[in-house]
Amino acid sequence: MALPSVSTQIQLVARPQGWPVDGDFRMTTVELAEPGPGQVRVVNEYISVDPYMRGRMNDVKSYVPPFALGETMTGGAVGRVVASTVDALKVGDVVVHQLGWRDVAQGDAAQFRVVPEVAGVPVSANLGVLGMTALTAYVGLLEVAQMVPGDTVFVSGAAGAVGSMVGQIARLKGAARVIGSAGSDAKVALLTGRYGFDTAFNYKSGPVTDQLAAAAPDGIDVYFDNVGGDHLEAAIATLNDGGRAALCGAIAQYNSTDAPVGPRNMANIVGRGLMLKGFIVGTYLQHYPAFAAEMAGWLAAGEVVFDETVVDGIEHAVDAFGSLMRGANTGKMLVQIARPS
Amino acid sequence: MALPSVSTQIQLVARPQGWPVDGDFRMTTVELAEPGPGQVRVVNEYISVDPYMRGRMNDVKSYVPPFALGETMTGGAVGRVVASTVDALKVGDVVVHQLGWRDVAQGDAAQFRVVPEVAGVPVSANLGVLGMTALTAYVGLLEVAQMVPGDTVFVSGAAGAVGSMVGQIARLKGAARVIGSAGSDAKVALLTGRYGFDTAFNYKSGPVTDQLAAAAPDGIDVYFDNVGGDHLEAAIATLNDGGRAALCGAIAQYNSTDAPVGPRNMANIVGRGLMLKGFIVGTYLQHYPAFAAEMAGWLAAGEVVFDETVVDGIEHAVDAFGSLMRGANTGKMLVQIARPS
Repeated sequence: MALPSVSTQIQLVARPQGWPVDGDFRMTTVELAEPGPGQVRVVNEYISVDPYMRGRMNDVKSYVPPFALGETMTGGAVGRVVASTVDALKVGDVVVHQLGWRDVAQGDAAQFRVVPEVAGVPVSANLGVLGMTALTAYVGLLEVAQMVPGDTVFVSGAAGAVGSMVGQIARLKGAARVIGSAGSDAKVALLTGRYGFDTAFNYKSGPVTDQLAAAAPDGIDVYFDNVGGDHLEAAIATLNDGGRAALCGAIAQYNSTDAPVGPRNMANIVGRGLMLKGFIVGTYLQHYPAFAAEMAGWLAAGEVVFDETVVDGIEHAVDAFGSLMRGANTGKMLVQIARPS
Repeated sequence: MALPSVSTQIQLVARPQGWPVDGDFRMTTVELAEPGPGQVRVVNEYISVDPYMRGRMNDVKSYVPPFALGETMTGGAVGRVVASTVDALKVGDVVVHQLGWRDVAQGDAAQFRVVPEVAGVPVSANLGVLGMTALTAYVGLLEVAQMVPGDTVFVSGAAGAVGSMVGQIARLKGAARVIGSAGSDAKVALLTGRYGFDTAFNYKSGPVTDQLAAAAPDGIDVYFDNVGGDHLEAAIATLNDGGRAALCGAIAQYNSTDAPVGPRNMANIVGRGLMLKGFIVGTYLQHYPAFAAEMAGWLAAGEVVFDETVVDGIEHAVDAFGSLMRGANTGKMLVQIARPS
């Protein structure tokens, strides 16, 4: 492999009003200096596009600061070291890092973490089933919503990268019943087939509250929210006494320019002793070792399946993000940058 | 004291549409039989009127079932045994029970709990500072919202029976700053004076979000919600990363006939990792002994003050409830039935 000295990068140049458009981004080419002391150069193989990035395109106070205008966007990526001035990182090592949205990344070695290469597991899995995506599902379900065996669990956006993991982890952890919602009949079939959900519904086929009530005649104990909006309201209507909801995101509202509407049934939260708890995975990283060990076992035993939707080329990263926002992906949405040598 | 054999009782005869009106209730007189085996007769001294009772007047599924139409309403009360057929309850004992909204109560002894008479503490305190009211404040703040020393705490409806306890317990438990809201300048003065809040504001004087931001320039860590509506939205806007809200009630919306509006800033819950948790005191009764011991110590040391607003006579119970709904009370709202003999 030649050592590339040019990096093609995607920068945010305008804050999207509603749905992101091409004009909100630009592609630029950066000439890289030789790696300095303590630095490495990495050729990215895959970059991750995730729903939370939409929030970072806005200029609002948040746990995670907004993307800066005119700077290259960041995000999860996995690649291979092509040049290194430090002993801990060797040429050929596979590393994960946050310098996504570029084909070649260069920086201080501390920004990169070496991951093992496991036979039969693609390196892209480090962004999904072995990465932040599945960790999000794991901690949201078990730490935030405190699922216990026997719970009935409802997951929205269940065919997505996080949702499909939530459903499978819930089953493996002893949920009595796992219910999912998704935006097409094909995804619904995937949920009850490949992903092993007990039942699922297409939220575009009727009111969410009615469909959820039919799917959960005895109510739900845990809700994992990827969607917000009417899904959250339906869950609040359906949660049993003492029920818990982990709020992971609200993709239904990310691109809305209207003032969002809050759930109109907040009174249920008092009367039924419900808990709604938001989270971002970054504050639960201490659970990574336990998660990684358990997930590796499930993968080795064939008890967890995962899907990827792959778009080719850094020049299509913005398209990939738009497809993700429209729900065109099944499982983890990735941009493939370089093919493994 | 003569042994009364007639009981005057308040019954719900129609479900209120919006604000309760006199026609939703009737006063009736019941002739009591002699207490049967295992029964006692109690002359009530005080009955409690509480905001949660408004919810029970509606016919909606809830943790606590609705009041039945045509039956006598129930609720906290304290009285004195005037006749007993059981050894455990003696004539003259002070008892607390749930057979409120009547001047004389009769029933199985198991429904009545004897409370000690403490010099300097009125029997009415068993409904307030030593009863469910202050237990609500205690468990909501410490168990539900998990307040820890150093937290900045915001309480709405802070001059009410629960709110005034929340503020004082927060201070005694080491809150860095205690902020309250109330509906009049006189109540605001009471908060920062008698009740020891660090700062307070009149929610009728301007937008809650603006006033709360001014009162809490470094944000809040805990919110105790007695009000709902724009107070809850303001708290969600102001809670710091990892902040917790205990949802105790939403008096602002109890009498509304419009569809309630939910908080429009639910996205903050995800981004800042906030927790909203509803509760009713009935599911936290296991904390009563710890609460009672701690509160008795605070009272004996003069570290907690409490107020009562007392309306005289069972025939004015509905008026008392209406006054409570309009915020005319300071501290615990009570209906005095019989004067201690």
